[in-house]
Amino acid sequence: MTLWTLFFKNSKILSEQFDKDPKKMMLINNIQHKNEIINIYLSTSKNINLSDLEKLCDSVGWIRRPLKKVKIAIKNSFLIVSLFQISERENKLIGFARATSDYAFNATIWDVVIHPEFQGKGLGSILVNQIIKDLREAEITTITLFADPEVLSFYKNLGFLSDPNGIRGMFWYPK
Amino acid sequence: MTLWTLFFKNSKILSEQFDKDPKKMMLINNIQHKNEIINIYLSTSKNINLSDLEKLCDSVGWIRRPLKKVKIAIKNSFLIVSLFQISERENKLIGFARATSDYAFNATIWDVVIHPEFQGKGLGSILVNQIIKDLREAEITTITLFADPEVLSFYKNLGFLSDPNGIRGMFWYPK
Repeated sequence: MTLWTLFFKNSKILSEQFDKDPKKMMLINNIQHKNEIINIYLSTSKNINLSDLEKLCDSVGWIRRPLKKVKIAIKNSFLIVSLFQISERENKLIGFARATSDYAFNATIWDVVIHPEFQGKGLGSILVNQIIKDLREAEITTITLFADPEVLSFYKNLGFLSDPNGIRGMFWYPK
Repeated sequence: MTLWTLFFKNSKILSEQFDKDPKKMMLINNIQHKNEIINIYLSTSKNINLSDLEKLCDSVGWIRRPLKKVKIAIKNSFLIVSLFQISERENKLIGFARATSDYAFNATIWDVVIHPEFQGKGLGSILVNQIIKDLREAEITTITLFADPEVLSFYKNLGFLSDPNGIRGMFWYPK
């Protein structure tokens, strides 16, 4: 079975996505997973299945958010990056990240998530580096994010600085 | 002279802006400035004069940015808030701030600036509180920003928390 036959075999969603914008889907890696070699694809299409995304966020224990709002957030993000596994057994959304931006100077990365079964394989770095690459190509120079304490070193390894020149991240929450 | 006669007397830019969307311009304060009572107006229109904005940013010593990119950034910001002084003597852009957002969950405030002559009069708080109000009305719950050390206490007084739960602001800069 060729790669492309395999690719289109099981996943209506993926093939629809691929049909719409073939340039937005690319093979990035082959990794060993459960005694099987699987292909990991990266997509920058905003045409993402919201139910698949909810399942992915569930897998890391995030609080559920209304799908209607998730759809709006994706539409109004500057950039969406998703990772899919494509194998004979299943096709699955296994990673996601997005960035808001003013399309000129600043961008902020949000919602970086890798399915627990696929963590520790370098896929988070692939996601974030793809975002950096695309933002740099768009000549956006200030790339920011807000990092939980447990992922500080992950982002430091990717070249992010925390609180440079004493600049502090601040949050306003509803009373 | 009535307020509206005064309002339209000198400022082509302001009157054009007002004509296009009268709801977006409102009188917020009368303040004493150079032995004169001046009216301060707040506008949420994106139809802002870029040369006036550049002068305002020059007044606080910011590095100049290409106006073409500034225009793109304003267009792609979720929200723009400007302050104008309207007096018999002159009409002037004296404050500005903007926010990016995904229109659903998160927003980030950027480029908060008050002309030095008008600092210490509570206008910065008016700008930021207006942004918070508008974002809350749009049901955006996570309002963020990156604060230089010298303005940390300003934002704390407005209810912002720095590094809540150990979350840290991070920046990636081009090598």
